[in-house]
Amino acid sequence: MKRIGKSTLEFDRPPTILSHGAVGGKKEAEGPLGAQFDQTFQDTTLQEDSWEKAEAQLQKEAVTIALRKAGVGPENVDFILAGDLLNQCISSTFGLMDFQIPFLGQYGACSTMAQTLLMATILVESGAAEKALAVTSSHFCSAERQFRLPLEYGGQRSPTAQWTATASGCVLVGTGGPVEIRRGLAGKIQDLGVKDPANMGAAMAPAAASSIFEFLEDTHTRPEDYDGIFTGDLGLVGSRLLYECMDDNGIDLRPVHQDCGLLLYDRERQDVHAGGSGCGCSAGVLCGHLLRQMEKGELKNILFCATGALMSPTSQQQGLAIPGVCHVVQLVAK
Amino acid sequence: MKRIGKSTLEFDRPPTILSHGAVGGKKEAEGPLGAQFDQTFQDTTLQEDSWEKAEAQLQKEAVTIALRKAGVGPENVDFILAGDLLNQCISSTFGLMDFQIPFLGQYGACSTMAQTLLMATILVESGAAEKALAVTSSHFCSAERQFRLPLEYGGQRSPTAQWTATASGCVLVGTGGPVEIRRGLAGKIQDLGVKDPANMGAAMAPAAASSIFEFLEDTHTRPEDYDGIFTGDLGLVGSRLLYECMDDNGIDLRPVHQDCGLLLYDRERQDVHAGGSGCGCSAGVLCGHLLRQMEKGELKNILFCATGALMSPTSQQQGLAIPGVCHVVQLVAK
Repeated sequence: MKRIGKSTLEFDRPPTILSHGAVGGKKEAEGPLGAQFDQTFQDTTLQEDSWEKAEAQLQKEAVTIALRKAGVGPENVDFILAGDLLNQCISSTFGLMDFQIPFLGQYGACSTMAQTLLMATILVESGAAEKALAVTSSHFCSAERQFRLPLEYGGQRSPTAQWTATASGCVLVGTGGPVEIRRGLAGKIQDLGVKDPANMGAAMAPAAASSIFEFLEDTHTRPEDYDGIFTGDLGLVGSRLLYECMDDNGIDLRPVHQDCGLLLYDRERQDVHAGGSGCGCSAGVLCGHLLRQMEKGELKNILFCATGALMSPTSQQQGLAIPGVCHVVQLVAK
Repeated sequence: MKRIGKSTLEFDRPPTILSHGAVGGKKEAEGPLGAQFDQTFQDTTLQEDSWEKAEAQLQKEAVTIALRKAGVGPENVDFILAGDLLNQCISSTFGLMDFQIPFLGQYGACSTMAQTLLMATILVESGAAEKALAVTSSHFCSAERQFRLPLEYGGQRSPTAQWTATASGCVLVGTGGPVEIRRGLAGKIQDLGVKDPANMGAAMAPAAASSIFEFLEDTHTRPEDYDGIFTGDLGLVGSRLLYECMDDNGIDLRPVHQDCGLLLYDRERQDVHAGGSGCGCSAGVLCGHLLRQMEKGELKNILFCATGALMSPTSQQQGLAIPGVCHVVQLVAK
């Protein structure tokens, strides 16, 4: 692989996506992409006795599906890269430990799917791995009580708030699959001082703008060179701010941009306010929807740009702003 | 790079450590390695108004020192790999964002120094990076209140408990430095059912045994081939269990093994019970002590095996055991 421009990696022998698994909950099943998930669960406890254990189970299911589709056993996977939103990433630990695959915990908040995919790609292209798994998850109920309010409280949500997806997505990276990972960029942390935890889209938009702008500069490409530029998850508010940030740089993203947080749900009908969010949102949209479209030839060349808000309730309570980060991965159907 | 045996990576053109920075608090300054830290702080608030901000500042100081020693500006570093024990890794986010280096958050609990060093090495050898930083931290006060009890409560500690180090260590990986990273192994999660959060050493010992055993098997080497095998942080209880686990496999680690948690403090005089712990413990011992000894020729060929307990207070309260992980890095002085 080589570095092009300031920050972009280009893979000379591009690793590919061998298989993918996407699982979701009841609300995700009822959304516009519901039929594209490999598996959805009407009972979002997944028969577990805590929301955290249910979320761990989502990761386990997604990995199991990806492995089954590829016909690969866990003993033939060299690394698993995983992370989630829960404190100390316990969904990943408890969901994945039974696979007994060398484990590299990642933390990128809702950018985790792009980060794990980028790292898995680097490991495969470098020869460190023949096959590597990238996986992440979120669960509405575990996220609400950890980051916001107990569910029982029934707090009212503000119009800028996003709905944490109950979902997990998993990708198996190796050689010989139908979709190549051609380029990637790891983002820098951006903090423009947004402090409203009910407006994560605004907090993350500057990071998305910065990483997408840098990627386009480095690769001497323009938005119209791609069939789609998919952010995840800026929602409605963040997407509009992203357009403004890009306009300032003379780039119009509107014709090719879509946001995973706006694809996963029917915003009006499903009452999700500004859209979806959570690691599982962009992971589910990538693994359930985008990769299927690429395999069917409906999308050929896309940028997957997952965004994360690197905050905690503690940093919030201590008056700090919400820094964002965005990692970019270019996917090309062969 | 190539894979040898089942899980070990061998670097054909081994990346090296260009520089390192280690900072610590008052207790660390008073310990046997106190004089070897680049900087220690008698006031462990570091003039910040919260323990979390103080911990973030530790990472910032460690990175600043490593960059200064190498004469490298942050704009010439391609990636920074960092993580910590705080929820959502906020020490790393807030401590490092001003450097504006592409950021890849890592979560390996107290194994984070080995994990970030391994990832930085892979990035450099693969050509993804020319230079990459690996950094982690912990702070006694932020860890106590998050994982255990409010400091003000003055709870009594059990004899098997370890003392979370107030420290940060940072390594700059690139080419041409005096210490090579020759091989590495990412560990699998091990869970033998230990549930006592005041006995992390016991929870992590099986992971250390598993990773060290696998590394020795893969490389066809024996403990006596190394000048030292340094775990971090098993403490007294975990170290004894590690010996027992290895004895079961016919390997006697005692002649070459030391534990970072037992090196950082004078266990009796400093009242740290079973020893030190926390991401900053093995990071501080590596960056303050071991790498200096390697540069002076006192150690030539070592294994650095940082261990992590992948639990959270939530998983604990829900009755789950404490899974452990251990990553191994082989360092050789040129």
